[in-house]
Amino acid sequence: MIQLTIDRHADEVAYRQVYRQLRAAILSGELPPETQLPPTRDLARAAGVARVTVVEAYRQLAAEGFIESRVGAGTFVAAGLNAAPADDEPVPFRPRLTEWGRRAVEVGRSARPADGARPEIDFGLGRSFAELFPYDVWRRLLARYLSTDDAMLSRYGSPAGFLPLRQAVADYLGRARGVRCAAEQVVIVSGAQQAFDILARLLLNPGDEVIVETPGYRDAFTLFQLHGARLVGLPVDDEGLPVDRIPAGCRARLAFVTPTHQFPKGGTMPLARRLALLAWARAQGALVVEDDYDGDLRYDGHSLAALQGVDSDGRVVYLGTFSKVLFPALRLGYLVLPPPLITPFVRAKDLVDRGAPTLTQAAVADFIAEGHFERHLRYLRRLYGERRAALAAALARHLGNRVRVSPLAAGLHVMVYAEEAVDEAQLVREAAAHGVRVQPGAPYHLERPAPPSLLLGFSGLDENEIVEGVRRLAEVWPPAP
Amino acid sequence: MIQLTIDRHADEVAYRQVYRQLRAAILSGELPPETQLPPTRDLARAAGVARVTVVEAYRQLAAEGFIESRVGAGTFVAAGLNAAPADDEPVPFRPRLTEWGRRAVEVGRSARPADGARPEIDFGLGRSFAELFPYDVWRRLLARYLSTDDAMLSRYGSPAGFLPLRQAVADYLGRARGVRCAAEQVVIVSGAQQAFDILARLLLNPGDEVIVETPGYRDAFTLFQLHGARLVGLPVDDEGLPVDRIPAGCRARLAFVTPTHQFPKGGTMPLARRLALLAWARAQGALVVEDDYDGDLRYDGHSLAALQGVDSDGRVVYLGTFSKVLFPALRLGYLVLPPPLITPFVRAKDLVDRGAPTLTQAAVADFIAEGHFERHLRYLRRLYGERRAALAAALARHLGNRVRVSPLAAGLHVMVYAEEAVDEAQLVREAAAHGVRVQPGAPYHLERPAPPSLLLGFSGLDENEIVEGVRRLAEVWPPAP
Repeated sequence: MIQLTIDRHADEVAYRQVYRQLRAAILSGELPPETQLPPTRDLARAAGVARVTVVEAYRQLAAEGFIESRVGAGTFVAAGLNAAPADDEPVPFRPRLTEWGRRAVEVGRSARPADGARPEIDFGLGRSFAELFPYDVWRRLLARYLSTDDAMLSRYGSPAGFLPLRQAVADYLGRARGVRCAAEQVVIVSGAQQAFDILARLLLNPGDEVIVETPGYRDAFTLFQLHGARLVGLPVDDEGLPVDRIPAGCRARLAFVTPTHQFPKGGTMPLARRLALLAWARAQGALVVEDDYDGDLRYDGHSLAALQGVDSDGRVVYLGTFSKVLFPALRLGYLVLPPPLITPFVRAKDLVDRGAPTLTQAAVADFIAEGHFERHLRYLRRLYGERRAALAAALARHLGNRVRVSPLAAGLHVMVYAEEAVDEAQLVREAAAHGVRVQPGAPYHLERPAPPSLLLGFSGLDENEIVEGVRRLAEVWPPAP
Repeated sequence: MIQLTIDRHADEVAYRQVYRQLRAAILSGELPPETQLPPTRDLARAAGVARVTVVEAYRQLAAEGFIESRVGAGTFVAAGLNAAPADDEPVPFRPRLTEWGRRAVEVGRSARPADGARPEIDFGLGRSFAELFPYDVWRRLLARYLSTDDAMLSRYGSPAGFLPLRQAVADYLGRARGVRCAAEQVVIVSGAQQAFDILARLLLNPGDEVIVETPGYRDAFTLFQLHGARLVGLPVDDEGLPVDRIPAGCRARLAFVTPTHQFPKGGTMPLARRLALLAWARAQGALVVEDDYDGDLRYDGHSLAALQGVDSDGRVVYLGTFSKVLFPALRLGYLVLPPPLITPFVRAKDLVDRGAPTLTQAAVADFIAEGHFERHLRYLRRLYGERRAALAAALARHLGNRVRVSPLAAGLHVMVYAEEAVDEAQLVREAAAHGVRVQPGAPYHLERPAPPSLLLGFSGLDENEIVEGVRRLAEVWPPAP
């Protein structure tokens, strides 16, 4: 008789315990094929459980094919289980990855070093203040769509996004960013990263050249490279991508730019250069991807209009995100697509994940349409403007003659260039030893070696932390030569 | 003097109207480069607006590079804008898609025909009843994470998913589905479709063979094919994939199966066949992808344990979704990965979209951990069980001698096979003319020609609609020969 151990205090109900132990015995070969099992009454008595418990376990094992009853003879471990690998050593599975898979592992490794303990003062990028967000409004908007009679939750949404949100985004972008588009051109994605991925899959063949800014947005670079693209990096000046330096023989079919506020160095591309970029794209038959990642967050005067708004050929794909003004965990971004790209993009989005969750899209649509978005934006501009001023003052005071600071007209971070002699990696390590996390600038550059620099995000820190962080940074910074 | 038209009743503030009209005049060439603009005072008087309005518009145009002031001379349209394509005809952009992009458009076109008007009785798949879901509980769980002091919303989540949700899924799957895994093996995705996409990118090289069931889950087929895989379709019997029919020379590195409840034909793969499949995978060095899309929704007795639970080599990737038990618009699914695939998959997920939204993940984690999930599942099993019984009875009564019906032990749809002489496409059209939407079976088959069949989903209909829908279907169904 097989020995069962029933724990009456376990979370697992008794029949599952019986089932699991018999199953393990069959799979391990302890109960080989064709073995007769004891009658339920006998096994129940031996295990000290009710007979119905064993009956239920047998029924489950029979349903799953582990045992079978034979009329007039009893219950047996199923025959034909001899393919069971029970006696053999397991042969652990080792995946053979595709080239894409191997590169994804590789770039993932270099892009995201293990962070270790949380730093005391974190100048990391992409942080935000949970307490700044109007949760009462957000909760009310979500609750509106959680009513039981609303069919929205019960169906798959459109892969292009929730139409009222697409309309609200189109209206907002026309009003605030000079983007000219219909709601049909707006497609909702799960953040900018997904936009890069789908665009790369649709448009980049292995070996294709892509014009990019350096320093630039390395997460987009990574995706372009993963799809086999060759990056042509043009070192930016204070007016963004130097369009007149695009090599004459360059056959790029895509240019990736941040004209409103160059990432990460700051600076705004002037109109003449924008028009020259569009003329280049027209001559080349190329597409321009405009990442307007923080165009909303301009501190002095009004936001500059988007490049998309001066394009008359439909050569600009415009990208935006809700991560910075709302919150990153929302995972929503949007694109404005030239009409011929709408269908390919939406079909691809449908194939890769069917579309974004409807509930949050509906709440964001109302958040924009009812004016909360722009109200919150004004609040953030004022508040982050104060932090930016604190950071600028602290940098001037503590590091004034040792660094050059990027333009600070917009955005949530500053880039600080050091003298050539400074060891960037050592600076990052020493700052960390003083409880201050800063981003090294080298990974954002395509130049080898990159000029020593740091990125300081200020969106997750209050003014005191900013000042204290810069003070500590100055302590580890080498003196001016 | 340029003519401005200011609408005082427009939503747009006056300075934006001035700005927009001047900008348009500059871009169109009406105001060519170097043209002197009137002094703000004169233009304001002519347009009937306050002077500050024109000052503001000029400031914005200057910031964007459209105009420039020259000391002592006035304000001029910027020089160097001659790259402006204003006079030329626009050269509309025509994207040159990659091979992947062209195929995505093509399969998208065939997979999603335009539906037209909403049918009166919709036997579509993947529908659910909004009113069945416990919204009060869901609202309470969401609200719990919407407090202002919670840092969760303010940061990017882990690309692998929210750890408490991964733990809750691991516990649930161990308890209910016989899956053996640690929380670290569970990765949260935006639905099963994303799981297929990332697995295909990681594992399938062009030309690789993939073993699939036919009829089968065509949306997975589509993604495998998009990545250049060659599908080896084995016609299923009532016990799922006939493992002994895998061609001897087949070099597939992936098999895609639905062993708990074959999609769409029904039937459960018995243990002996499961072990044979694992033995094949071991001999072949292959991976088995187990899609347990509706294993939770079994009506008679307990759910059958997952294939993953009898695998000792770590060759099974297990997939599940919350779309059916919770609601589709949630857009959350999960995988259980063999340990060597965890890092590649999570890196890829990070690269393609950074991870799923944290808020809903947190709410679902509590929904499971606090017992709501299994309570709701029991409720759905009873309720859908009644609908299933109504459908089975209606089919027997109205179409009994004209069709063969798939096993109905689980799931939310039934597959109905017709006599060979029946024209499937015509049947679908005639049903539609009677207000009844049914899915043609052919697209789920790899066989050419496919045996005539229909899929009837019953998860979006009440019992009266089910009975009436089958009655109407019987009217258009050809009589038995």
